[in-house]
Amino acid sequence: MNNVKGFSFSGISCGIKKKGIKDLGLIFSSKECLAHAVFTKNKVIAAPLIVSKKILKKNKIKGVIVNSGNANACTGKKGIISAEKIINNAAKIKNLEFNNFFISSTGIIGEQLDSKKIINKIPELFSKLKPNNIKDFANSILTTDKFIKIKSAKLKIGNETGTILGIAKGAGMIHPNMATMLCYLVTDIKFEKKTFINFINNATDKTFNAISVDGDTSTNDTVLGLSNGFINNSPIKSNTKIGNQLYKEIEKIFYYLASSIVKDGEGSTKFCKVTVKGTQTIIDAKKVCEKICTSLLFKTALFGSDPNWGRIIASVGATGLKYIDQSKIDIKINKNNVVKKGIGCKLTNKINMSMKKKEIDLEINLNKGSKESTMFTNDIGHEYIKINSLYRT
Amino acid sequence: MNNVKGFSFSGISCGIKKKGIKDLGLIFSSKECLAHAVFTKNKVIAAPLIVSKKILKKNKIKGVIVNSGNANACTGKKGIISAEKIINNAAKIKNLEFNNFFISSTGIIGEQLDSKKIINKIPELFSKLKPNNIKDFANSILTTDKFIKIKSAKLKIGNETGTILGIAKGAGMIHPNMATMLCYLVTDIKFEKKTFINFINNATDKTFNAISVDGDTSTNDTVLGLSNGFINNSPIKSNTKIGNQLYKEIEKIFYYLASSIVKDGEGSTKFCKVTVKGTQTIIDAKKVCEKICTSLLFKTALFGSDPNWGRIIASVGATGLKYIDQSKIDIKINKNNVVKKGIGCKLTNKINMSMKKKEIDLEINLNKGSKESTMFTNDIGHEYIKINSLYRT
Repeated sequence: MNNVKGFSFSGISCGIKKKGIKDLGLIFSSKECLAHAVFTKNKVIAAPLIVSKKILKKNKIKGVIVNSGNANACTGKKGIISAEKIINNAAKIKNLEFNNFFISSTGIIGEQLDSKKIINKIPELFSKLKPNNIKDFANSILTTDKFIKIKSAKLKIGNETGTILGIAKGAGMIHPNMATMLCYLVTDIKFEKKTFINFINNATDKTFNAISVDGDTSTNDTVLGLSNGFINNSPIKSNTKIGNQLYKEIEKIFYYLASSIVKDGEGSTKFCKVTVKGTQTIIDAKKVCEKICTSLLFKTALFGSDPNWGRIIASVGATGLKYIDQSKIDIKINKNNVVKKGIGCKLTNKINMSMKKKEIDLEINLNKGSKESTMFTNDIGHEYIKINSLYRT
Repeated sequence: MNNVKGFSFSGISCGIKKKGIKDLGLIFSSKECLAHAVFTKNKVIAAPLIVSKKILKKNKIKGVIVNSGNANACTGKKGIISAEKIINNAAKIKNLEFNNFFISSTGIIGEQLDSKKIINKIPELFSKLKPNNIKDFANSILTTDKFIKIKSAKLKIGNETGTILGIAKGAGMIHPNMATMLCYLVTDIKFEKKTFINFINNATDKTFNAISVDGDTSTNDTVLGLSNGFINNSPIKSNTKIGNQLYKEIEKIFYYLASSIVKDGEGSTKFCKVTVKGTQTIIDAKKVCEKICTSLLFKTALFGSDPNWGRIIASVGATGLKYIDQSKIDIKINKNNVVKKGIGCKLTNKINMSMKKKEIDLEINLNKGSKESTMFTNDIGHEYIKINSLYRT
């Protein structure tokens, strides 16, 4: 884990969760940041997103406040007022204007957020800011996560070394779980505004949106990028050597964080990469991916290490794509053929054993075009039921 | 249970399932029947459906052969030849032509059907035909079902009494399970061809398609209607008093059978009726119903008797319908308000206790239009995982 110049972090307990458990976090930059966020596409969005969207209109902020334990979602005008109060208090302590702070919340939906608990702790939150308090912050934003998710990279930019750091939370495959996913990417490298926006958007599409599947996300999902330009390089542009290199690093960090979220799936025991090839459009390939990644029958077969390709091919057909020809479908599990031209191959011992792996690679080829797409999912087992049937109790 | 004039039934064991378990069924009518079927909309369809579709082109058959234990799906040309061989043998025994028999299969996907096992038992299958052997037939078509599903009604038609009898199999909410659903409706009442086709189509839409959700069905799903006209009434027409009465009876029988399938859901402990009101189109209402009925988070909350409306409202938003206004959404559980204008109501003890019921009535009103739709679903619990992760072993 690497510090990022000009950024400091803190994470403390404010009493929304059980006593002593971290539930309030802060990222603060000594220099104003270029900021861009990707929000949930859900039509029901939480109060902090309504507030933060407005603040981000000018693409400039200095800090991010996050609480866990309460999502401040479906809380009406009261919820918006709570979020604004918290930001106001944070701004005051730094003698800054209101619109210097971004706010996120994650946790239970529909209960009013007790803003007083947070406001009382804002002085402590700022006093604990340190450049290397990254883990405290990462801990403070967790809900049902079993582990913190942090990834960073260092890059030579001219004579300087720039750093990119990503911190995320989320457990489950998000869709269809719709548990909240949050990700903060901070960097001291300076970017051209348009380039930074594109990099964050594109990398989110390839990674977080490949687990949240087709925009079906929770009320609070947020990916925020912050660049404070502390190393004072000439602003990074797209389609340059260094630009391409940096984009790859951002995508790698997002991929690591997104796959960590899938792996931390509630009760998940397996990570599965689903690639669909041979469709006429990318949208069609995504449609097939989504159908498989959300098939309960497939996800339970995965849990049971059962190479049950019948459930996979039935999911393919269930998409209703008109040009599907069952006699052309090929399916591979961990590079082994299990279906050739729509007919099942012998399930060898090798295939059966390979289903017991922690990481499963599934490839479906419709052989009807040249487009493809990849998504990521996990299995559904007993732990998932236990966690989610008793979430409130 | 009522006999239906001219129809006889049998159900025996032919060795596809474990020894002694019924896995081969027959319905036979002494008079040629007017026949109409609704098939799965899945693009991957099983061999018996390919064969039966051709046979049904003339809308006239005398018998139905069904096997359980093997779906004869994804079996290529071999599978089609197997289905045809079986039909040929059944036709021969009755000195009938090939196209007098309809065939269905249900069970595991992707393994070749051993047609010899069935053909060897066809003489026994016919010899055991009896008008009141309905339960034997109903038993022979089951797979993971815990109980047989039979419903009948008697109606005065002029001086005669007509009978309608429905027999179904299926467990789980089908979509997203994609377990096979089969239903056979037989009647001795004579119908006008167009009327019979409409009645079967419309009643299927309102019932089986409200559990299979938007055409996302398995490779083998079939609803078949057979009318042998034995009581020799003047053919029933739509938009007549008796026509309307008969349609209602057919829909009632289908509703009973469809809800029995939901209640027999693999590991299901609860039946939930989901009504979505206040949308601008029926398609939109269906879209919201489907999102809720397939939300794992909602289905596990149902299992845990948790009135977790946050998961419901998040599902509503996840449909992405543009005109959704979260501040207008109302939600009722068992007639009690849990959300008014997008904000949670106090969860009283009454509401919490009512979630423990076996039948849950959920109503969501978007208050943005006058259209509505209803679907049916069940909960997802530990038994579901157990059954579906170990299906093959």
